[in-house]
Amino acid sequence: MAGSLVPGGIGAHTSCLLVKLGQVVYRLAEERLDQLGMRVRHYSVLQALADNGAMNQLALGAYLRIDPVTMVSTLDDLEERGFALRTRDPQDRRRYLVDVSDAGQDVLRKANALLAELDGQVLSDVPQRSHASLHKQLERLSEGATLPAEFDRVRDHAGSTKRSSAGSPSAGW
Amino acid sequence: MAGSLVPGGIGAHTSCLLVKLGQVVYRLAEERLDQLGMRVRHYSVLQALADNGAMNQLALGAYLRIDPVTMVSTLDDLEERGFALRTRDPQDRRRYLVDVSDAGQDVLRKANALLAELDGQVLSDVPQRSHASLHKQLERLSEGATLPAEFDRVRDHAGSTKRSSAGSPSAGW
Repeated sequence: MAGSLVPGGIGAHTSCLLVKLGQVVYRLAEERLDQLGMRVRHYSVLQALADNGAMNQLALGAYLRIDPVTMVSTLDDLEERGFALRTRDPQDRRRYLVDVSDAGQDVLRKANALLAELDGQVLSDVPQRSHASLHKQLERLSEGATLPAEFDRVRDHAGSTKRSSAGSPSAGW
Repeated sequence: MAGSLVPGGIGAHTSCLLVKLGQVVYRLAEERLDQLGMRVRHYSVLQALADNGAMNQLALGAYLRIDPVTMVSTLDDLEERGFALRTRDPQDRRRYLVDVSDAGQDVLRKANALLAELDGQVLSDVPQRSHASLHKQLERLSEGATLPAEFDRVRDHAGSTKRSSAGSPSAGW
Protein backbone atom coordinates (compact mmCIF):
# COMPACT_ATOMS: atom_id res chain seq x y z
CA MET A 1 0.00 0.00 0.00
CA ALA A 2 1.26 3.47 -0.87
CA GLY A 3 2.21 5.68 2.09
CA SER A 4 -0.06 8.38 3.46
CA LEU A 5 -0.65 11.47 1.34
CA VAL A 6 -0.12 13.57 4.47
CA PRO A 7 2.49 11.69 6.49
CA GLY A 8 3.64 12.11 10.07
CA GLY A 9 3.14 15.34 11.95
CA ILE A 10 1.86 17.14 8.86
CA GLY A 11 -1.29 15.02 9.07
CA ALA A 12 -1.96 16.34 12.58
CA HIS A 13 -3.37 19.45 10.90
CA THR A 14 -6.89 19.22 9.48
CA SER A 15 -5.85 22.10 7.24
CA CYS A 16 -3.01 20.07 5.73
CA LEU A 17 -5.31 17.09 5.14
CA LEU A 18 -7.78 19.34 3.31
CA VAL A 19 -5.06 20.95 1.18
CA LYS A 20 -3.56 17.67 0.01
CA LEU A 21 -6.87 15.84 -0.46
CA GLY A 22 -8.16 18.78 -2.49
CA GLN A 23 -5.11 18.65 -4.72
CA VAL A 24 -5.44 14.89 -5.24
CA VAL A 25 -9.19 14.88 -5.87
CA TYR A 26 -8.77 17.78 -8.28
CA ARG A 27 -6.37 15.72 -10.36
CA LEU A 28 -8.77 12.78 -10.35
CA ALA A 29 -11.76 14.97 -11.24
CA GLU A 30 -9.86 16.54 -14.13
CA GLU A 31 -8.93 13.08 -15.36
CA ARG A 32 -12.55 11.88 -15.28
CA LEU A 33 -13.98 14.97 -16.96
CA ASP A 34 -11.29 14.84 -19.63
CA GLN A 35 -13.29 11.92 -21.08
CA LEU A 36 -15.90 14.55 -22.02
CA GLY A 37 -13.32 17.08 -23.17
CA MET A 38 -14.14 19.12 -20.08
CA ARG A 39 -12.37 20.44 -17.03
CA VAL A 40 -13.76 21.05 -13.53
CA ARG A 41 -14.36 24.72 -14.24
CA HIS A 42 -16.40 23.94 -17.35
CA TYR A 43 -18.52 21.59 -15.28
CA SER A 44 -19.02 24.23 -12.59
CA VAL A 45 -20.24 26.82 -15.06
CA LEU A 46 -22.71 24.44 -16.71
CA GLN A 47 -24.05 23.27 -13.33
CA ALA A 48 -24.44 26.87 -12.16
CA LEU A 49 -26.42 27.75 -15.29
CA ALA A 50 -28.55 24.63 -14.94
CA ASP A 51 -29.26 25.60 -11.31
CA ASN A 52 -29.99 29.28 -11.91
CA GLY A 53 -31.00 29.74 -15.54
CA ALA A 54 -29.27 32.29 -17.77
CA MET A 55 -26.86 34.60 -15.92
CA ASN A 56 -24.68 37.48 -16.96
CA GLN A 57 -20.94 36.86 -16.95
CA LEU A 58 -20.30 39.11 -13.97
CA ALA A 59 -22.91 37.43 -11.77
CA LEU A 60 -21.69 34.00 -12.85
CA GLY A 61 -18.10 34.89 -11.97
CA ALA A 62 -19.11 36.20 -8.55
CA TYR A 63 -21.30 33.17 -7.86
CA LEU A 64 -18.51 30.71 -8.68
CA ARG A 65 -15.63 32.96 -7.54
CA ILE A 66 -13.98 32.60 -10.92
CA ASP A 67 -11.86 35.58 -11.93
CA PRO A 68 -12.97 37.45 -15.10
CA VAL A 69 -10.08 36.28 -17.30
CA THR A 70 -10.61 32.60 -16.47
CA MET A 71 -14.37 33.05 -16.87
CA VAL A 72 -14.02 34.47 -20.39
CA SER A 73 -11.79 31.62 -21.53
CA THR A 74 -14.04 29.04 -19.87
CA LEU A 75 -17.10 30.47 -21.63
CA ASP A 76 -15.20 30.61 -24.93
CA ASP A 77 -14.44 26.89 -24.58
CA LEU A 78 -18.04 26.03 -23.73
CA GLU A 79 -19.43 28.10 -26.59
CA GLU A 80 -16.95 26.58 -29.06
CA ARG A 81 -18.10 23.08 -28.06
CA GLY A 82 -21.75 24.09 -28.31
CA PHE A 83 -22.39 23.59 -24.58
CA ALA A 84 -23.23 27.22 -23.76
CA LEU A 85 -24.72 30.19 -25.59
CA ARG A 86 -23.96 33.87 -25.13
CA THR A 87 -26.71 36.34 -25.99
CA ARG A 88 -27.04 40.07 -25.41
CA ASP A 89 -28.79 40.84 -22.15
CA PRO A 90 -32.14 42.45 -23.13
CA GLN A 91 -32.01 44.44 -19.84
CA ASP A 92 -28.57 45.86 -20.63
CA ARG A 93 -27.33 45.57 -24.21
CA ARG A 94 -23.70 46.09 -23.14
CA ARG A 95 -23.77 42.81 -21.25
CA TYR A 96 -23.93 39.17 -22.24
CA LEU A 97 -26.23 36.57 -20.78
CA VAL A 98 -24.92 33.04 -20.76
CA ASP A 99 -27.12 29.97 -20.86
CA VAL A 100 -26.64 26.24 -21.17
CA SER A 101 -27.56 24.63 -24.52
CA ASP A 102 -29.33 21.28 -25.01
CA ALA A 103 -25.96 19.70 -25.79
CA GLY A 104 -24.67 21.34 -22.61
CA GLN A 105 -27.49 19.80 -20.55
CA ASP A 106 -26.60 16.45 -22.04
CA VAL A 107 -22.88 16.68 -21.28
CA LEU A 108 -23.71 18.02 -17.81
CA ARG A 109 -25.70 14.85 -17.05
CA LYS A 110 -22.68 12.77 -18.09
CA ALA A 111 -20.33 14.94 -16.04
CA ASN A 112 -22.51 14.57 -12.94
CA ALA A 113 -22.52 10.79 -13.43
CA LEU A 114 -18.71 10.74 -13.69
CA LEU A 115 -18.37 12.91 -10.59
CA ALA A 116 -20.81 10.69 -8.67
CA GLU A 117 -18.59 7.72 -9.59
CA LEU A 118 -15.57 9.69 -8.38
CA ASP A 119 -17.37 10.50 -5.11
CA GLY A 120 -17.84 6.77 -4.59
CA GLN A 121 -14.18 6.11 -5.25
CA VAL A 122 -12.99 9.00 -3.05
CA LEU A 123 -15.19 7.84 -0.16
CA SER A 124 -14.37 4.15 -0.49
CA ASP A 125 -11.96 4.13 2.46
CA VAL A 126 -14.57 5.65 4.80
CA PRO A 127 -17.33 3.39 6.17
CA GLN A 128 -20.61 3.84 4.30
CA ARG A 129 -22.39 4.97 7.47
CA SER A 130 -20.02 7.96 7.73
CA HIS A 131 -20.38 9.23 4.13
CA ALA A 132 -23.32 11.52 4.81
CA SER A 133 -21.80 13.02 7.95
CA LEU A 134 -18.47 13.68 6.23
CA HIS A 135 -20.29 15.37 3.35
CA LYS A 136 -22.34 17.42 5.82
CA GLN A 137 -19.28 18.64 7.73
CA LEU A 138 -17.54 19.66 4.50
CA GLU A 139 -20.70 21.46 3.42
CA ARG A 140 -20.68 23.36 6.70
CA LEU A 141 -17.11 24.49 6.00
CA SER A 142 -17.99 25.57 2.48
CA GLU A 143 -21.09 27.57 3.36
CA GLY A 144 -20.29 28.70 6.90
CA ALA A 145 -19.46 32.16 8.20
CA THR A 146 -15.69 31.67 7.98
CA LEU A 147 -14.16 30.17 4.84
CA PRO A 148 -16.17 31.92 2.10
CA ALA A 149 -15.44 35.30 3.71
CA GLU A 150 -11.79 34.44 4.32
CA PHE A 151 -11.36 33.32 0.72
CA ASP A 152 -12.91 36.53 -0.56
CA ARG A 153 -10.56 38.49 1.70
CA VAL A 154 -7.38 36.78 0.46
CA ARG A 155 -8.53 37.00 -3.16
CA ASP A 156 -9.22 40.72 -2.84
CA HIS A 157 -5.86 41.19 -1.17
CA ALA A 158 -4.07 39.30 -3.96
CA GLY A 159 -5.87 41.45 -6.53
CA SER A 160 -4.93 44.72 -4.87
CA THR A 161 -1.27 43.90 -4.32
CA LYS A 162 1.14 41.70 -6.18
CA ARG A 163 -0.21 38.46 -7.57
CA SER A 164 0.68 35.62 -5.21
CA SER A 165 3.26 33.23 -6.59
CA ALA A 166 1.41 30.44 -4.81
CA GLY A 167 0.66 28.38 -7.89
CA SER A 168 -2.58 28.87 -9.74
CA PRO A 169 -5.18 30.05 -7.25
CA SER A 170 -8.10 29.37 -9.57
CA ALA A 171 -6.87 25.96 -10.70
CA GLY A 172 -9.70 24.28 -8.83
CA TRP A 173 -12.43 25.81 -10.95
CA MET B 1 -22.70 36.41 4.69
CA ALA B 2 -20.76 35.43 1.57
CA GLY B 3 -22.35 32.71 -0.59
CA SER B 4 -21.26 29.09 -0.50
CA LEU B 5 -17.84 28.24 -1.89
CA VAL B 6 -19.45 25.29 -3.67
CA PRO B 7 -22.93 26.48 -4.60
CA GLY B 8 -25.97 24.58 -5.84
CA GLY B 9 -25.65 21.20 -7.49
CA ILE B 10 -21.84 21.38 -7.52
CA GLY B 11 -21.91 20.96 -3.74
CA ALA B 12 -23.78 17.66 -4.12
CA HIS B 13 -20.39 16.10 -4.90
CA THR B 14 -18.10 15.37 -1.96
CA SER B 15 -15.29 15.53 -4.51
CA CYS B 16 -16.15 19.10 -5.45
CA LEU B 17 -16.32 20.13 -1.79
CA LEU B 18 -12.86 18.67 -1.19
CA VAL B 19 -11.39 20.35 -4.29
CA LYS B 20 -12.63 23.82 -3.41
CA LEU B 21 -11.96 23.58 0.33
CA GLY B 22 -8.45 22.39 -0.42
CA GLN B 23 -7.87 25.36 -2.69
CA VAL B 24 -9.20 27.82 -0.12
CA VAL B 25 -7.34 26.35 2.86
CA TYR B 26 -4.15 26.26 0.79
CA ARG B 27 -4.42 30.00 0.22
CA LEU B 28 -5.00 30.61 3.92
CA ALA B 29 -2.12 28.34 4.94
CA GLU B 30 0.23 30.12 2.54
CA GLU B 31 -0.86 33.43 3.97
CA ARG B 32 -0.19 32.34 7.56
CA LEU B 33 3.20 30.77 6.82
CA ASP B 34 4.24 33.84 4.83
CA GLN B 35 4.68 35.53 8.25
CA LEU B 36 7.67 33.21 8.69
CA GLY B 37 8.89 33.64 5.11
CA MET B 38 7.77 30.08 4.45
CA ARG B 39 5.38 28.26 2.17
CA VAL B 40 3.44 25.06 2.81
CA ARG B 41 6.05 22.95 1.04
CA HIS B 42 8.86 24.34 3.20
CA TYR B 43 6.84 23.44 6.28
CA SER B 44 6.21 19.92 4.97
CA VAL B 45 9.90 19.28 4.40
CA LEU B 46 10.92 20.53 7.85
CA GLN B 47 8.17 18.49 9.54
CA ALA B 48 9.18 15.36 7.60
CA LEU B 49 12.81 15.79 8.70
CA ALA B 50 11.75 16.42 12.29
CA ASP B 51 9.64 13.24 12.16
CA ASN B 52 12.21 11.00 10.47
CA GLY B 53 15.67 12.47 11.08
CA ALA B 54 18.08 13.13 8.20
CA MET B 55 16.87 11.77 4.84
CA ASN B 56 18.32 11.73 1.37
CA GLN B 57 16.62 13.96 -1.19
CA LEU B 58 15.17 11.06 -3.14
CA ALA B 59 13.57 9.44 -0.12
CA LEU B 60 12.26 12.79 1.06
CA GLY B 61 10.69 13.49 -2.32
CA ALA B 62 9.02 10.08 -2.42
CA TYR B 63 7.78 10.43 1.15
CA LEU B 64 6.17 13.82 0.50
CA ARG B 65 5.33 13.16 -3.19
CA ILE B 66 7.22 16.29 -4.19
CA ASP B 67 8.71 16.14 -7.67
CA PRO B 68 12.54 16.41 -7.87
CA VAL B 69 12.63 19.91 -9.39
CA THR B 70 10.34 21.38 -6.73
CA MET B 71 12.25 19.50 -4.04
CA VAL B 72 15.59 20.97 -5.11
CA SER B 73 14.26 24.53 -5.09
CA THR B 74 12.49 23.97 -1.76
CA LEU B 75 15.72 22.67 -0.20
CA ASP B 76 17.68 25.56 -1.71
CA ASP B 77 15.28 27.98 -0.02
CA LEU B 78 15.51 26.20 3.32
CA GLU B 79 19.29 26.03 3.20
CA GLU B 80 19.57 29.69 2.25
CA ARG B 81 17.47 30.66 5.28
CA GLY B 82 19.51 28.40 7.53
CA PHE B 83 16.56 26.07 8.27
CA ALA B 84 18.02 22.92 6.69
CA LEU B 85 21.49 21.50 6.07
CA ARG B 86 22.68 19.35 3.20
CA THR B 87 25.59 17.01 3.88
CA ARG B 88 27.12 14.20 1.84
CA ASP B 89 25.56 10.85 2.68
CA PRO B 90 28.36 8.82 4.33
CA GLN B 91 26.73 5.63 2.93
CA ASP B 92 26.79 6.96 -0.62
CA ARG B 93 29.01 9.97 -1.34
CA ARG B 94 27.09 10.81 -4.53
CA ARG B 95 24.02 11.60 -2.49
CA TYR B 96 23.06 14.35 -0.12
CA LEU B 97 21.45 13.89 3.23
CA VAL B 98 19.17 16.69 4.37
CA ASP B 99 18.55 17.53 7.99
CA VAL B 100 16.77 20.24 9.90
CA SER B 101 18.94 22.84 11.69
CA ASP B 102 18.32 24.30 15.15
CA ALA B 103 16.89 27.42 13.50
CA GLY B 104 14.73 25.09 11.41
CA GLN B 105 13.40 23.37 14.54
CA ASP B 106 12.58 26.77 15.93
CA VAL B 107 10.71 28.00 12.85
CA LEU B 108 8.96 24.63 12.61
CA ARG B 109 7.51 25.11 16.10
CA LYS B 110 6.20 28.50 15.04
CA ALA B 111 4.78 27.08 11.81
CA ASN B 112 2.98 24.31 13.69
CA ALA B 113 1.49 26.90 16.04
CA LEU B 114 0.27 28.99 13.07
CA LEU B 115 -1.22 25.92 11.40
CA ALA B 116 -2.93 24.89 14.64
CA GLU B 117 -4.50 28.36 14.76
CA LEU B 118 -5.59 27.90 11.14
CA ASP B 119 -7.09 24.51 12.00
CA GLY B 120 -9.17 26.22 14.66
CA GLN B 121 -10.35 28.84 12.20
CA VAL B 122 -11.08 26.33 9.43
CA LEU B 123 -13.12 24.15 11.81
CA SER B 124 -14.97 27.02 13.46
CA ASP B 125 -18.19 26.39 11.51
CA VAL B 126 -18.33 22.73 12.57
CA PRO B 127 -19.51 21.91 16.11
CA GLN B 128 -16.61 21.15 18.46
CA ARG B 129 -17.88 17.61 19.09
CA SER B 130 -17.47 16.81 15.37
CA HIS B 131 -13.88 18.09 14.95
CA ALA B 132 -12.20 14.81 15.85
CA SER B 133 -14.47 12.70 13.65
CA LEU B 134 -14.03 15.01 10.65
CA HIS B 135 -10.26 14.86 11.10
CA LYS B 136 -10.41 11.06 11.40
CA GLN B 137 -12.44 10.66 8.18
CA LEU B 138 -10.04 12.90 6.28
CA GLU B 139 -7.13 10.91 7.66
CA ARG B 140 -8.77 7.73 6.39
CA LEU B 141 -8.98 9.24 2.92
CA SER B 142 -5.35 10.33 3.01
CA GLU B 143 -3.92 7.02 4.20
CA GLY B 144 -6.43 4.53 2.78
CA ALA B 145 -6.05 2.03 -0.02
CA THR B 146 -7.51 4.33 -2.68
CA LEU B 147 -6.35 7.94 -2.89
CA PRO B 148 -2.58 7.57 -2.33
CA ALA B 149 -2.44 4.87 -5.03
CA GLU B 150 -4.69 6.83 -7.39
CA PHE B 151 -2.57 9.95 -6.96
CA ASP B 152 0.61 8.02 -7.69
CA ARG B 153 -1.06 6.59 -10.80
CA VAL B 154 -2.11 9.96 -12.22
CA ARG B 155 1.26 11.50 -11.36
CA ASP B 156 3.12 8.68 -13.13
CA HIS B 157 0.82 9.05 -16.09
CA ALA B 158 1.41 12.81 -16.26
CA GLY B 159 5.15 12.19 -16.14
CA SER B 160 5.11 9.66 -18.96
CA THR B 161 2.88 11.66 -21.32
CA LYS B 162 2.42 15.36 -21.82
CA ARG B 163 2.42 17.52 -18.74
CA SER B 164 -1.16 18.25 -17.73
CA SER B 165 -2.23 21.85 -18.24
CA ALA B 166 -4.30 21.52 -15.07
CA GLY B 167 -2.59 24.30 -13.18
CA SER B 168 0.27 23.51 -10.87
CA PRO B 169 -0.18 19.95 -9.63
CA SER B 170 2.37 20.27 -6.86
CA ALA B 171 1.20 23.68 -5.70
CA GLY B 172 -0.12 22.17 -2.47
CA TRP B 173 3.31 21.22 -1.20
